[in-house]
Amino acid sequence: MAITVVGSIAIDNIETPFNKVSNVLGGSVSFFSLAACFLTEVRIIGVVGSDFSQNYFEVFKKKSIDISQIKIKEGKTFHWEGKYDYNLSDPKTLNTELGVFSDFQPIIPENFKNDILFLANIDPDIQLNILKQMNSSRLIVLDTMNFWIESKKEKLLKVIENADIFIINSSEARLLTNQASVFSAAKSILNLGPKTLIIKRGECGAAMFTGNKFFIVPAYPLEDIKDPTGAGDSFAGGFLGYIDNTGDISFENFKKALVFGNIMASYTVEDFSVNKLLNISLNDLRNRFNKFKEITHFENIYNEIIK
Amino acid sequence: MAITVVGSIAIDNIETPFNKVSNVLGGSVSFFSLAACFLTEVRIIGVVGSDFSQNYFEVFKKKSIDISQIKIKEGKTFHWEGKYDYNLSDPKTLNTELGVFSDFQPIIPENFKNDILFLANIDPDIQLNILKQMNSSRLIVLDTMNFWIESKKEKLLKVIENADIFIINSSEARLLTNQASVFSAAKSILNLGPKTLIIKRGECGAAMFTGNKFFIVPAYPLEDIKDPTGAGDSFAGGFLGYIDNTGDISFENFKKALVFGNIMASYTVEDFSVNKLLNISLNDLRNRFNKFKEITHFENIYNEIIK
Repeated sequence: MAITVVGSIAIDNIETPFNKVSNVLGGSVSFFSLAACFLTEVRIIGVVGSDFSQNYFEVFKKKSIDISQIKIKEGKTFHWEGKYDYNLSDPKTLNTELGVFSDFQPIIPENFKNDILFLANIDPDIQLNILKQMNSSRLIVLDTMNFWIESKKEKLLKVIENADIFIINSSEARLLTNQASVFSAAKSILNLGPKTLIIKRGECGAAMFTGNKFFIVPAYPLEDIKDPTGAGDSFAGGFLGYIDNTGDISFENFKKALVFGNIMASYTVEDFSVNKLLNISLNDLRNRFNKFKEITHFENIYNEIIK
Repeated sequence: MAITVVGSIAIDNIETPFNKVSNVLGGSVSFFSLAACFLTEVRIIGVVGSDFSQNYFEVFKKKSIDISQIKIKEGKTFHWEGKYDYNLSDPKTLNTELGVFSDFQPIIPENFKNDILFLANIDPDIQLNILKQMNSSRLIVLDTMNFWIESKKEKLLKVIENADIFIINSSEARLLTNQASVFSAAKSILNLGPKTLIIKRGECGAAMFTGNKFFIVPAYPLEDIKDPTGAGDSFAGGFLGYIDNTGDISFENFKKALVFGNIMASYTVEDFSVNKLLNISLNDLRNRFNKFKEITHFENIYNEIIK
């Protein structure tokens, strides 16, 4: 079993009210793969520039992530500079340089075509092209962002229609549907075709919808958040890693996978870049999963409550 | 068993982007008592003006709420006008007329002094005065608001020190402690003396802290929210009603009480004023409690997850 992920590998500069880091590893693929690799084999389809540090390749290699399909092209690696204010949500983009990512044309090798596919946030035209190549994927999972909802909605809707699982955050869900409540938005989005919808709700946690079933969890409580970058992709990595590891696509197992993703994201935001993901073990994840169960579960209501 | 509640009874004008209502029943005491009365006896200590409609007295009477200690004074009942924008949080106050509430001097009858006491949001000086009278209360539960944190912090801290349970919302918790994270704020507030702290987190739900234990729940998912007024007091009414009904003050039972409060608040916001509370049954509450359990609980992680 394996997951193929297609998206960006980036070099980030990040500023928060508490700290500032430069030229750190970023991009959806990096967070996703370093999260999912705790549980399953991950294969990256991506591109970097000739400036991409050998150390970062080593980061992936140490985690046995398949980097054979990362193309190295003459030029600069995708670069993003973002700044967070005190509420640590919705960063301000200070600078984006696409570099070699600007003409990224992913090709899926034959032996990847049966994998679970994670289409990280990229141009819907590219996502459609990948879908055409990936005709026998076990599970197609889609992420996107506000920018594509605003600029390429029609193409995006075609991708959404073909997704088994669509992962989106609450502001994107509102933008896509023009509905104020995430729970009304969810209904509309399910009508667009995806079998399962996950809405990431930032500090409110996450919600999952499929048919008439749904599931909601709060975010794991943290006293300090250092850098929210990559939380969503780490979430997706934890979620899909768990599904691929267990091979169980029942809604009951999706619930546990969602909690596992939630836990993964809670670790990512505790440090800058992918640092925390490199310093935790599967056992840490398991312990936090169990802790989360303890702090969110409650017993049945007393049957005898009557006045 | 009974709960004594001290606070405001008001006549509200409420405007949301969807509707507008005038001269409806409001005030912390109204929401609290009409929520708690599903589960236990409630006794109101309050004051209204000579303009207070007999119909509203009937609302309380029909629910067997003890209104013998509501004083009727010559003058106007406390009046609040608020307007909500599209995000339906933090209303803008358009007008406040204290009326007869301006020199409210509550006196606790001898036979109320063993009750659970809910000190709804009022002047901390009045709250201290009540505490002096209420020397044998089984459980002292406190609410407050930003205004008192900013204008009477020292007095408020004395009340907090004496509270068994302190209920506050997340922006108030941040203001009181100067901490950005509600989970750090919680630690600081527990150091002020209350045995248990509950932080209401709006659309993110609620969190409860005591010693080293804590518990978090998401808000009940709703597609339409009509009017958030009174959600916090309904929450407190459901929470304390459940505790008084069951007579169980263990942390495990507090968890269920918190969920019950959460459910109560979810009903209140589905209609204007106290309307929804007048149109649901204990069975509705029980069903939504069970539904909430179903949509938030998950099974244990597979023990065998290893790569």
